[in-house]
Amino acid sequence: MHKISSLISQQIQDSFARQGMMQSLGAQIERIASGEVVLSLRPNPEMSQQHGVVHAGATFALGDSASGYAALTQMPAGKEVMTVEMKINLLDPAAGARLIATGRVVKPGKRLVITRCDIEAEAEDGTRKLVAILQGTMIPVEAT
Amino acid sequence: MHKISSLISQQIQDSFARQGMMQSLGAQIERIASGEVVLSLRPNPEMSQQHGVVHAGATFALGDSASGYAALTQMPAGKEVMTVEMKINLLDPAAGARLIATGRVVKPGKRLVITRCDIEAEAEDGTRKLVAILQGTMIPVEAT
Amino acid sequence: MHKISSLISQQIQDSFARQGMMQSLGAQIERIASGEVVLSLRPNPEMSQQHGVVHAGATFALGDSASGYAALTQMPAGKEVMTVEMKINLLDPAAGARLIATGRVVKPGKRLVITRCDIEAEAEDGTRKLVAILQGTMIPVEAT
Amino acid sequence: MHKISSLISQQIQDSFARQGMMQSLGAQIERIASGEVVLSLRPNPEMSQQHGVVHAGATFALGDSASGYAALTQMPAGKEVMTVEMKINLLDPAAGARLIATGRVVKPGKRLVITRCDIEAEAEDGTRKLVAILQGTMIPVEAT
Repeated sequence: MHKISSLISQQIQDSFARQGMMQSLGAQIERIASGEVVLSLRPNPEMSQQHGVVHAGATFALGDSASGYAALTQMPAGKEVMTVEMKINLLDPAAGARLIATGRVVKPGKRLVITRCDIEAEAEDGTRKLVAILQGTMIPVEAT
Repeated sequence: MHKISSLISQQIQDSFARQGMMQSLGAQIERIASGEVVLSLRPNPEMSQQHGVVHAGATFALGDSASGYAALTQMPAGKEVMTVEMKINLLDPAAGARLIATGRVVKPGKRLVITRCDIEAEAEDGTRKLVAILQGTMIPVEAT
Repeated sequence: MHKISSLISQQIQDSFARQGMMQSLGAQIERIASGEVVLSLRPNPEMSQQHGVVHAGATFALGDSASGYAALTQMPAGKEVMTVEMKINLLDPAAGARLIATGRVVKPGKRLVITRCDIEAEAEDGTRKLVAILQGTMIPVEAT
Repeated sequence: MHKISSLISQQIQDSFARQGMMQSLGAQIERIASGEVVLSLRPNPEMSQQHGVVHAGATFALGDSASGYAALTQMPAGKEVMTVEMKINLLDPAAGARLIATGRVVKPGKRLVITRCDIEAEAEDGTRKLVAILQGTMIPVEAT
């Protein structure tokens, strides 16, 4: 992982702060590096499905945003990205003290950016288990 | 679409009411039929991405739940379903007065249920536009 | 379905004839309409998996090509399309006298085209069963 | 990677030899390890799309088989696996002297096995480029 410019880092933080969904989920930025962004959230009942574990939609939202910001680290200034498509496989119930999503760029590009993301559930004792994986496509758009 | 038993219908309504995520999004059940469930939500800033339109995660959550409940209409009593995997293609920005997700069972089964879902954005004047499509797999689990 | 120009129809037939993979599989064009292309093949041992039914790769190849040519019907002359990504759900073993793939454009566009495809297996008596569904993304490229 | 029993290794080789599709593509087993199987093929005109590069269907077939056999290394004797669903992102045209697919088990399980696969194109000089990535689900079935 290479360092990225403070400009891109600031752009990501500003964008993240404007995402109502990330704020509603209480998500946080853990790390911004070239081609890799790590986000986390603390599960709570407001993002649960019927059994009390995290809803696939919240898990997906975290992974989608981590993937999108990872893609954004590879864009020239003044660009943003939108999700074209994203697929998630849910491996185990998403429960624990924290969910940690690590989004990575697999292939950067001017027309499309391909990403993967791993989502781990962290227990109170710090042990982690992989609970979801994502694979998707982002498209650059002009920042507004 | 065939009618379904009031038992299954009640089970879906109870399950839906326990989904913190659906409640947080203000989602509603529009229709429950055999192999098809329609859910809706009214977009608000708390589920937005950085441009103010609905975050892919909220769109996904609605489509995933519509798909899961459609699958549930095909299950024997006492079963529930979990999402194995789900893929979403985002066709247009999800904005408008309402999002309407129509989940349908493509192939029922004892071991797996395959689903598709269409999500439309409805403007104030009632016109609708397809904004996302999903294709996924559900697995039956014992109800708890 | 609207009729399409004989120019596009000819372009698709020419492209299809150059696809070594379609020729190896013995695939045929059944129908070309605006936004919809139907391809078929007759299963044989050379495209089987270990149990003698059609390999997921051959089923996928047919569905991917049907989707791509459906997308091509929506392109201006002189353009071709490439697959960005494609997801397949396999519902039942692909066996029978014929496989028939119906590719459809869900959302045309200058930058991306979103498609769905249904693949049916047809028995000797003409009865059909849905065996696979696909959902994917095509990108326009300059014809060479 | 751990070593696997010669029994499983033999079962995979026997199954592979029965796959007409793998034989038609001239595919070879490069490596069998616990949770990881590497397959390769040499591109030829019979598996091309209209521009002469490898058809997405052939690339998919190789990746799907590598994923399936990786899953099989985690199964008890007497079991086989079938593909439930598989998604492929095509990153770059698949051309060169060889395609090499590395399938890996992300999550083994009695009911489902989740896999990822990377496909590289190798030039005559041995340099490699990632051209496709897959993510999918396998289901155990009784061997016949």
